[in-house]
Amino acid sequence: MTIALTGDRPTGPLHLGHYVGSLQNRLKMQDTYDQHIMIADIQALTDNFENPKKVTENVFELMKDYLSIGLDPRKNTFFIQSQISELGELTIYYLNLVTVARLERNPTVKTEIQQKGYDDSIPAGFLCYPVSQAADITIVQAEVVPVGEDQLPMIEQTNEIVRRFNRIYNGEYLKECKPVLSQTTRLVGIDGKTKAGKSLGNAIFLSDSPEEIKRKVFSMFTDPGHLKISDPGKIEGNVVFAYLDAFHANKEEISDLKAHYQKGGLGDTAIKTLLNTTLQELLEPIRSARSAIQLNDIKDVLKIGTNKTRQTALKTMEQVRQAIGLQYWQ
Amino acid sequence: MTIALTGDRPTGPLHLGHYVGSLQNRLKMQDTYDQHIMIADIQALTDNFENPKKVTENVFELMKDYLSIGLDPRKNTFFIQSQISELGELTIYYLNLVTVARLERNPTVKTEIQQKGYDDSIPAGFLCYPVSQAADITIVQAEVVPVGEDQLPMIEQTNEIVRRFNRIYNGEYLKECKPVLSQTTRLVGIDGKTKAGKSLGNAIFLSDSPEEIKRKVFSMFTDPGHLKISDPGKIEGNVVFAYLDAFHANKEEISDLKAHYQKGGLGDTAIKTLLNTTLQELLEPIRSARSAIQLNDIKDVLKIGTNKTRQTALKTMEQVRQAIGLQYWQ
Repeated sequence: MTIALTGDRPTGPLHLGHYVGSLQNRLKMQDTYDQHIMIADIQALTDNFENPKKVTENVFELMKDYLSIGLDPRKNTFFIQSQISELGELTIYYLNLVTVARLERNPTVKTEIQQKGYDDSIPAGFLCYPVSQAADITIVQAEVVPVGEDQLPMIEQTNEIVRRFNRIYNGEYLKECKPVLSQTTRLVGIDGKTKAGKSLGNAIFLSDSPEEIKRKVFSMFTDPGHLKISDPGKIEGNVVFAYLDAFHANKEEISDLKAHYQKGGLGDTAIKTLLNTTLQELLEPIRSARSAIQLNDIKDVLKIGTNKTRQTALKTMEQVRQAIGLQYWQ
Repeated sequence: MTIALTGDRPTGPLHLGHYVGSLQNRLKMQDTYDQHIMIADIQALTDNFENPKKVTENVFELMKDYLSIGLDPRKNTFFIQSQISELGELTIYYLNLVTVARLERNPTVKTEIQQKGYDDSIPAGFLCYPVSQAADITIVQAEVVPVGEDQLPMIEQTNEIVRRFNRIYNGEYLKECKPVLSQTTRLVGIDGKTKAGKSLGNAIFLSDSPEEIKRKVFSMFTDPGHLKISDPGKIEGNVVFAYLDAFHANKEEISDLKAHYQKGGLGDTAIKTLLNTTLQELLEPIRSARSAIQLNDIKDVLKIGTNKTRQTALKTMEQVRQAIGLQYWQ
């Protein structure tokens, strides 16, 4: 089976944005790919190193999210990035193959540097994290990496490193990887502002209680001009319809409701009630699976996956050392 | 015993400049320090990654140089940098604690970037090598690092990282190190130009044959104005006297010869003959010890030292992981 690598930074619970953006895709992929799912704590530390608990305390929570939605430990290899020492080692060799100027030109990193307001105090680890990602991808010999559009420069950077490594050390030691673009659109936050984000407080989490879900659905941004039920309402920018599009199974029903809402006569309470029911139905089994998960089971799954990944990593490093000529004992 | 870390980049045979600059000092230190001697192949790769053989083929040669001058495997821990996977791992965590701007301000790196003519294509690994050095020093928990004046910024960078790490993670996890400045002056090249260098072709190597030594001594730059034996000669810039100062045991004799040379009546051949005798006496036992060394012995010494260092490295990483909170299985 084709090896795929995916994963998340453990900086908070997963939410519905992740569900439509990547988790659903992983549920499909687990049957047809040798899917590796990495809990990217090292990467999360590059901009949280002063507050490591934000990262470390979310590792098991993230794993709980994975298991609760039905990602199967028998079908996927789950591992914790920081427990694979060889990743750092490989990153060090890759750093030689990338110029500082190239890293500074990386569009994703550039945007993030601006967002974080680093100005002239960019941590070197943050600037270098695309190289660290190249190590993540190649150390498990991943052939496929599911990404959002904004992550494409990372794949490009990885493949540049792979090609340069193979050219300099004169052999097909490393494989290029292919990005798989997720087809779903981004889920907006419940406030209607850009995307739902852990840090923005505008997301519905997979682990939210029924009350929390209801509260969030009923506080959703709709159409501020839609004052009376009889008024015509707008669909564009209406978060409730965006979520109904993403989560309601019956597209026809939603299409009819939209027409009704636009014409007038359909109240926000009605559509919010429908969305609440839809999300409760989706999240109830997830929450229930979640509550059955034991900490020890999580640890076991991660230990097994991490050990397995370590074996692959050691094999890859063997090839890398052979390529550079660093096998002194032979 | 106090732990010291020292070492060399394996990019060519050691020469007399190393002998007075660092090797003699190590011979003294091996009796009073727990001296670790690192063969810095990873660091050497940061500017030789396109020509790794220049590095890898010199690892055992360097070790031969060490043993031939009398560095004792029972008193020192010799290890190969690339065989300690944890160094890369530690470097990755340290990269978060240093800004890109700080790395770009490092005076040693700045000078080297100019010398190498990197302009806008500085390999990221090269810019980051002071962070990698901080990992080298702290992973063996070195308290003392013998350095030349030009390497002081590296110690400063290391201690900055140590202080920042301990402050952020709130404990005395890592120790600061002290530089020990080598007292000897730099040995000039046989052409009289700045320092003797492997790459400059102006050095006398510890492994040079008697004929090679003689040839190099007799081609040394003296005083171009000293044409006839009876002419007064200059001492300043005279390479033969610089070497006699560094290697001749009898300071009084050299002082008398200098006076004679300055007054006139002492020929270059006479002083070169004296220097040749002096250097042949110094290097003969080294060369003879060298020829007795077996490749398997070298490998054994390096294996033992590398394994020992690996154990220390694992212990240090345990502390580092504990500090950051990356011990998930406990």
